[in-house]
Amino acid sequence: MSKLNELTATAAAQAIAAKDITSEALTAACLGRIAEREADVVAWAHIDPDAALAEARQRDREGPKGALHGVPVGFKDVIETFDMPTAYGSAIYPGYRPVADAACVALVRAAGGVVLGKTATTEFAFVNPAGTRNPHNLAHTPGGSSSGSAASVADMMVPLALGTQTGGSVIRPSSFCGVAGYKPTIGQFSYAGVKLLARSLDTLGAMARHAGDFALLRAAMMGAPAAVVPLAGPPRFGFCRTPWWDRADASSHAAVEAAISAVTDAGAEVREVTLPVEYAGLEGANKTIMMYEGRRALAHEYNQHEELLSDRLKAQMATGAAASYADYGAAIELTDRCRQGFAAVMDGIDALIVPSAVGEAPEGFETTGDATFNRPWTTMGTPCVTLPGHIGPTGLPVGAQLVARYGDDDYLMSVACWVENSIAS
Amino acid sequence: MSKLNELTATAAAQAIAAKDITSEALTAACLGRIAEREADVVAWAHIDPDAALAEARQRDREGPKGALHGVPVGFKDVIETFDMPTAYGSAIYPGYRPVADAACVALVRAAGGVVLGKTATTEFAFVNPAGTRNPHNLAHTPGGSSSGSAASVADMMVPLALGTQTGGSVIRPSSFCGVAGYKPTIGQFSYAGVKLLARSLDTLGAMARHAGDFALLRAAMMGAPAAVVPLAGPPRFGFCRTPWWDRADASSHAAVEAAISAVTDAGAEVREVTLPVEYAGLEGANKTIMMYEGRRALAHEYNQHEELLSDRLKAQMATGAAASYADYGAAIELTDRCRQGFAAVMDGIDALIVPSAVGEAPEGFETTGDATFNRPWTTMGTPCVTLPGHIGPTGLPVGAQLVARYGDDDYLMSVACWVENSIAS
Repeated sequence: MSKLNELTATAAAQAIAAKDITSEALTAACLGRIAEREADVVAWAHIDPDAALAEARQRDREGPKGALHGVPVGFKDVIETFDMPTAYGSAIYPGYRPVADAACVALVRAAGGVVLGKTATTEFAFVNPAGTRNPHNLAHTPGGSSSGSAASVADMMVPLALGTQTGGSVIRPSSFCGVAGYKPTIGQFSYAGVKLLARSLDTLGAMARHAGDFALLRAAMMGAPAAVVPLAGPPRFGFCRTPWWDRADASSHAAVEAAISAVTDAGAEVREVTLPVEYAGLEGANKTIMMYEGRRALAHEYNQHEELLSDRLKAQMATGAAASYADYGAAIELTDRCRQGFAAVMDGIDALIVPSAVGEAPEGFETTGDATFNRPWTTMGTPCVTLPGHIGPTGLPVGAQLVARYGDDDYLMSVACWVENSIAS
Repeated sequence: MSKLNELTATAAAQAIAAKDITSEALTAACLGRIAEREADVVAWAHIDPDAALAEARQRDREGPKGALHGVPVGFKDVIETFDMPTAYGSAIYPGYRPVADAACVALVRAAGGVVLGKTATTEFAFVNPAGTRNPHNLAHTPGGSSSGSAASVADMMVPLALGTQTGGSVIRPSSFCGVAGYKPTIGQFSYAGVKLLARSLDTLGAMARHAGDFALLRAAMMGAPAAVVPLAGPPRFGFCRTPWWDRADASSHAAVEAAISAVTDAGAEVREVTLPVEYAGLEGANKTIMMYEGRRALAHEYNQHEELLSDRLKAQMATGAAASYADYGAAIELTDRCRQGFAAVMDGIDALIVPSAVGEAPEGFETTGDATFNRPWTTMGTPCVTLPGHIGPTGLPVGAQLVARYGDDDYLMSVACWVENSIAS
């Protein structure tokens, strides 16, 4: 058996269920890895080893609670926890202790998960970086805003971590860090107890080292089947360059092409899909909606603590404050039209294959990277999975993204596992 | 001038802007009314007269901040406030003091509003009543779950109060208490800092004594125009019995028919509209989604404090826990189909006229009434306004409801003001 901290959530849950390993041993292995690497990676906003080990021992004592029994899970620090601080990556709330767990935390606990700790986030899951480094090259950003969730999973500190995506905050850091990332259909995972930024866009998602792990999380979060249904045959893919293909660099093109080769070799049909012209507006719509709603969602912080908001946040939000009500309305309307038309785009196709990011993780920490290839799907609310496999010229991972129909998440789990196998073989 | 506490929000804002009255005097008048009546009506979960008067005096000192300058506003006690307790109507959280204002509270303050206090809510805006009484007859329910918001506005304690609707929790109590109620298009008013029950349904709305007041709130919440644009001519209405017409009693039928007579007399065209057959499933879909998502949104409360949840809540939620994942998915799919088809239903029509409730407010406090006529619109997310005007056989008010296209809220404001005038004349 590989080192315990390197197990996927699925393998860990199976080993615990079979009593091959204990949750305590697994949790201790994760904590050991964190102790070894955290000074470099800076993935965690809060870790309490004693509390995590105590919860793990409780799991070892009690009967199986659910799909994640005994599995350690990290939670982005915009997700509230009643027994750990939640600072939202903000200077306003250091050490703040919420009164309740967010629904996702409570549901993970109810399914037997162990809350390992809180992962580093940009300020309010927006633009100001958290100080986290890319485990593959410490001089590069891990991406954001779910920086710590991506980095901790990539660095074998935890098998599964939750994040949020309003622009590209789950898929992009997953691509940069070389892990699987999943953004569900908007609204599927309860946002109760998660700091809202833009309700029209905010989506709770996750990172893991195996696409099938997301099915365990779906079981915990919403009662979906925990077992991924294997496909009867190869799925039908659409290769979609999107209107932004030229913004992706050669490494991102290569990641998409490698995924297409892998699925083609495995017997899948891939045909080109061109998005209707108006979809080109979805990138801008995402920004307009995020800033317009985000500035209002943070009204309390502006009213009471403006001096503690970063200049970077205020500068970006100012563009939202400047957007007109008419612009906002037009962005919402465009989104609705595209969402309604997406079933026609997907006619005869199970999933699109598109870039996950513009390329490798940029060097430095000024930015968490470009969300262009995430914004349209976040805005329409369609489910996405990014899968690793390709390595760019700098030696950093670059993912390829699968996009499915609105609400078609269970099937996407099956497709993603099929693609994962195709890439690996 | 009428008593200050009887002014509409629009009249109050104008009088304050013209320096005819002070915010302090208005707030004092509202507090006076509360002192006089609260023992009977039980509309408030928390009132701090000194704090409200201090905020009012600050408004009188500072320049005009926005559309609600100086106007007292009540907030349902599932809406978080940093300077007042927020108990969510629950035995779990007595005296709980959140760290931040909900976005809606902060935005109302930023627009010059005065936070008068927190209005009584059923437990987590769900089924267990708050003890509030109908101001028109203290032996009757005010409806729920936004019980205190409806009763306080009806009883002239405050001109404007915010509530939430997941089933029928804004429109129904507004109808029962004889005030105007407004449920926006879902997602328009930020839910940040409001206790989530079911994200697919939860909608922040409001009660007032004049439909035009909602435009002031829309300006504060989302930068919409504060002035209602008068219609150039009579709007086109659809009289829609809905599949549940026979569940409404004679008083509700009469309220709808009276509204139709009033608008017809004022020159409007009214034609009958029949909903497509599958819309009959929206009532059940609302219940399925509410329970399925609600049970999960309250996972922390179940994990940690189940003994402090009411038996009534647990009994209802048990049906949600029992619903299958497939049932939930089917309810979501039906909702999507109906929402997408609603534009065709509304072809050539500006607003539907439908019942607001099954009839007058029931006697007693075991239930907050039946949400049948609210569930379909909540589920589809379409905007609604209920307007008073009709009085039933027991002497209690019965509203009539206007339903507009998804996202067509500004136009609905114009239509609602036109109908309000037609009913009054």
